Amino acid sequence: MTSSRTPLLADSRRRSLDSDHAAEEEDAALHGRAASPGRSPRLREWILFLWALLATATVIILAVIVQHNQQTSHSSPKPSSDKRNLIFMVSDGMGPASLSLTRSFRQYIDDLPIDDTLVLDQHFWGTSRTRSSSSLVTDSAAGATAFSCGKKSYNGAIAVDPDHNPCGTVLEAAKRAGYTTGLVVTTDVTDATPASFAAHVWYRFQNDEIALQEIGEGVLGRTVDLIFGGGRCRFLPNGVEGSCRADDVDVRGIAQDKHGWSWADSRAGFDAMAGGKNVSLPALGLFAPADVPFEVDRRNMADVYPSLSEMASTAIKALEEATKDSEKGFFLMIEGSRIDHAGHFNDPAAQVREVLEYDKTFKLVVDFLEESETEGVLVATSDHETGGLATAYQRPGELPAYYWHPSVLANSNASSEHAARLLSQYVASVPDDVNKSDLKKWINTNILQQRMGIDDAQDTELDAIVSNPALALPVFSKMISSRARIGWSTAGHSAVDVNIYSSGGPAVDHLRGNVENTDIGKFLRSYLDVEDHVADITKELGKKMEIKPPVMGVRIQEVAVGLGEALHLDLSYEP
Amino acid sequence: MTSSRTPLLADSRRRSLDSDHAAEEEDAALHGRAASPGRSPRLREWILFLWALLATATVIILAVIVQHNQQTSHSSPKPSSDKRNLIFMVSDGMGPASLSLTRSFRQYIDDLPIDDTLVLDQHFWGTSRTRSSSSLVTDSAAGATAFSCGKKSYNGAIAVDPDHNPCGTVLEAAKRAGYTTGLVVTTDVTDATPASFAAHVWYRFQNDEIALQEIGEGVLGRTVDLIFGGGRCRFLPNGVEGSCRADDVDVRGIAQDKHGWSWADSRAGFDAMAGGKNVSLPALGLFAPADVPFEVDRRNMADVYPSLSEMASTAIKALEEATKDSEKGFFLMIEGSRIDHAGHFNDPAAQVREVLEYDKTFKLVVDFLEESETEGVLVATSDHETGGLATAYQRPGELPAYYWHPSVLANSNASSEHAARLLSQYVASVPDDVNKSDLKKWINTNILQQRMGIDDAQDTELDAIVSNPALALPVFSKMISSRARIGWSTAGHSAVDVNIYSSGGPAVDHLRGNVENTDIGKFLRSYLDVEDHVADITKELGKKMEIKPPVMGVRIQEVAVGLGEALHLDLSYEP
Repeated sequence: MTSSRTPLLADSRRRSLDSDHAAEEEDAALHGRAASPGRSPRLREWILFLWALLATATVIILAVIVQHNQQTSHSSPKPSSDKRNLIFMVSDGMGPASLSLTRSFRQYIDDLPIDDTLVLDQHFWGTSRTRSSSSLVTDSAAGATAFSCGKKSYNGAIAVDPDHNPCGTVLEAAKRAGYTTGLVVTTDVTDATPASFAAHVWYRFQNDEIALQEIGEGVLGRTVDLIFGGGRCRFLPNGVEGSCRADDVDVRGIAQDKHGWSWADSRAGFDAMAGGKNVSLPALGLFAPADVPFEVDRRNMADVYPSLSEMASTAIKALEEATKDSEKGFFLMIEGSRIDHAGHFNDPAAQVREVLEYDKTFKLVVDFLEESETEGVLVATSDHETGGLATAYQRPGELPAYYWHPSVLANSNASSEHAARLLSQYVASVPDDVNKSDLKKWINTNILQQRMGIDDAQDTELDAIVSNPALALPVFSKMISSRARIGWSTAGHSAVDVNIYSSGGPAVDHLRGNVENTDIGKFLRSYLDVEDHVADITKELGKKMEIKPPVMGVRIQEVAVGLGEALHLDLSYEP
Repeated sequence: MTSSRTPLLADSRRRSLDSDHAAEEEDAALHGRAASPGRSPRLREWILFLWALLATATVIILAVIVQHNQQTSHSSPKPSSDKRNLIFMVSDGMGPASLSLTRSFRQYIDDLPIDDTLVLDQHFWGTSRTRSSSSLVTDSAAGATAFSCGKKSYNGAIAVDPDHNPCGTVLEAAKRAGYTTGLVVTTDVTDATPASFAAHVWYRFQNDEIALQEIGEGVLGRTVDLIFGGGRCRFLPNGVEGSCRADDVDVRGIAQDKHGWSWADSRAGFDAMAGGKNVSLPALGLFAPADVPFEVDRRNMADVYPSLSEMASTAIKALEEATKDSEKGFFLMIEGSRIDHAGHFNDPAAQVREVLEYDKTFKLVVDFLEESETEGVLVATSDHETGGLATAYQRPGELPAYYWHPSVLANSNASSEHAARLLSQYVASVPDDVNKSDLKKWINTNILQQRMGIDDAQDTELDAIVSNPALALPVFSKMISSRARIGWSTAGHSAVDVNIYSSGGPAVDHLRGNVENTDIGKFLRSYLDVEDHVADITKELGKKMEIKPPVMGVRIQEVAVGLGEALHLDLSYEP
């Protein structure tokens, strides 16, 4: 534009001035006097014109510079409007070591170069400190409350502060502000992470109450529009097959009749959603009685259970459709819930597949945001690390190893949890006085060799399994970990900082570096511009709810959390 | 400027034009014709003038905007010139868990709030992948070669590539480009990290050869101007007291006589440097026979050994003085070497003090750069994690702990290494047939209670110490770790990504996120603008050096690294 416009102006002006000036000179010659040199109006015009020309050219150049600077320094590619989508992902229990573990595992199984990275690696943003108000080592409830309320609370707290006062969550505030909201997980939908966004109870194991609040029976009414995951048993009344409720409340019935939820509880029901094109909100999709199986097992039962990435993709499509004519977008929380369980079980073969599935889900979210017409951001982090995972393990009596073996994990086709379940079913099917030697042989062939890729089982290992088949799970995990040279320090959580990932952009700038987990919670409400709603809802909850814990100390809570999470031995899903 | 200049121009011009125009109108009135409306030169002048004025004002406004944008988006506070200082810090063996460990420990001992952070935390920049060319788990030699040469190499490689070809280092290139160079460490100055910047050997344990190359006996001559640390024994000829050389080469003599090094080997010698104001370059300061003691021990022997922060501060002052009239600045590598050793020993009480001292050193470097007239950058990272450290440990037979106890580390006033040395000295001073019960009592009182703050030693623990006092070190470490609920998975290294810290600025932008360790090496040479020198030196080294490993496989190297590093039981410094 500059080059085509400037000469045009210059040429036309130059011609008219030239002819004027020529006329003046001619006139001066005819009248026998020189054209006035200093004061001549013609010359003044010339000077004025050059000045104007120069200044205009400079304007154009500077305008281009300013325009360029604005484009490069604040790259906001989407048209600016109030409409925003926020997707928050939680990799429950994924500490920093899970990344080097999974990255190298993927390089091994896919024969990739040594500098190949996960999608997550390419979106590394910063790290988060994780401690709770009650302990240097948090649990998932306090961790999720830091995200949902932006407040530190005690281990076990579900969206309540250290004094048990309920705190408004970003999801509740988003709903009130007009956003559409969703929760997608691979564990029970009443588990600590999703619960902390849509329920308020003094202690995480009040699953029966959490189920009711999530469907709309809490003091705020219904705040969630879409819930996908496991934990169906909490929604069926005691006495009905598949229920795990202590009471006979029919949560499903209340959800459908009183609050209008659509209901899906099978792969067929999931497939009928047509990838999100055929979802009737509010939508409750409970695809497993409790946990969705670990991905390493689920991929062999894909006709029964949808994967995290399938659920996430369907949820996003459904929420996009639902908000296509809205002024506001949607808020969606997606949790890779069972990275944490693989940590509790100290099972690295299960964990790498969980992290790969989470990475795949992260990628589809990034791709959605890039292609979406609506402005949006993805922030992803963990609540804590689980297991004290180390990608190196010195076996007793050996020198330290300066390597670990992805091949061991690649050869295993079953989680320790699934192997223990298979063993449990087999033991139940044979007489109590089964020959120990026969049992060892069956385990060695049918579980270790065929399922877990272990063909060098030691007698001491087989003895440990046979002596107490009900506690075989940790033995299976130890057999895999020791052979792969993967170390663990606990069946619980640890205090290491966790990673933050993001689709990026200036909005997320102040989550750069090392931040508190509560800073992430504050970012979520700030990005959606719902701080005022959070404050209002906190006030409203304070008036309408009174949360009183039973008389027992925090120490008992801690032990309960440790026990409950360490013995997370749910065997209820269909194999 | 805009407001004072624009009206001035406008006013003077307006006055002159007004009078011209008034004269024209008067003239027209006298001659009975109207002042020509469209074509009048006066009006043309007016239009031209307004155009010029408007354009000029716009130029000024846009110039201010551009100026402002440049100042805010690229905040480079120092006057731009070629002179630059680059300080590169290495926290050998510090993985992500060391940060949460040390941060909480500091909050505990200094009674700080739960959101208090280390200086490092406030400068968190990104993370680095660490694998070497030969293994998923690197050693310090391959790690340092990634930094110094920007190349992946095998475990054990000192500035040579996987084919044993020597590679030019950033320090050698900086020296050739006119920078002044320095190395400050707390272990032997011939150890893997410093060696990889100023020597080229096929295997890290060739310390005798490394010492010679570091003082200037390599094919490039002298490339280092300042070396502070431990490892004096490598510089004294075999046969002389305090020597650990295999040969009778007098490295100190060659350094002083042939290459002009000044020499200091004591606290008095260090103090004579007057904080850096009285240092004669090249300066060799070897303040310990081998390692400088762990900080938890050194602070009780401060009259013998300078600390890392003291050495770093003195080095920076000396290099600043030496370059004050130079066109180029300096390149300094500072290593918190023994964070790694505390990891190898699985000693959390030693490690937190090492990390705190490193944090203190980091702060003084940041402060120096902020106050310095010369542009400069600090980049800090680790080569790898050591120990598989976890800030949570489930004791055998117990439930997982959702906490850990900083008080246990705070109560200890001696490293396991120092405790083992005291025990070794005591055992040597009593008869061989000393009563075991008396020995246990002495250990319990004099070491465990008085030095390590442990007053609940179990009989099994005391028995394990007494049964083999020479192997007491790991027992001491286990006693501390178990009580603090700190876990370890190996006496070697692990593969977890490590943190990157920086003083920041746009120059360091492309080290944001998750990068390869070689990217850090490439940044170092790029910041100093010495890529061409690196290439030239690599060529020169290829012509002048031939590095041939003895006939043994890489596997043996790996075992040697593991053995050597795991049994890093050097007891040679004076208590």
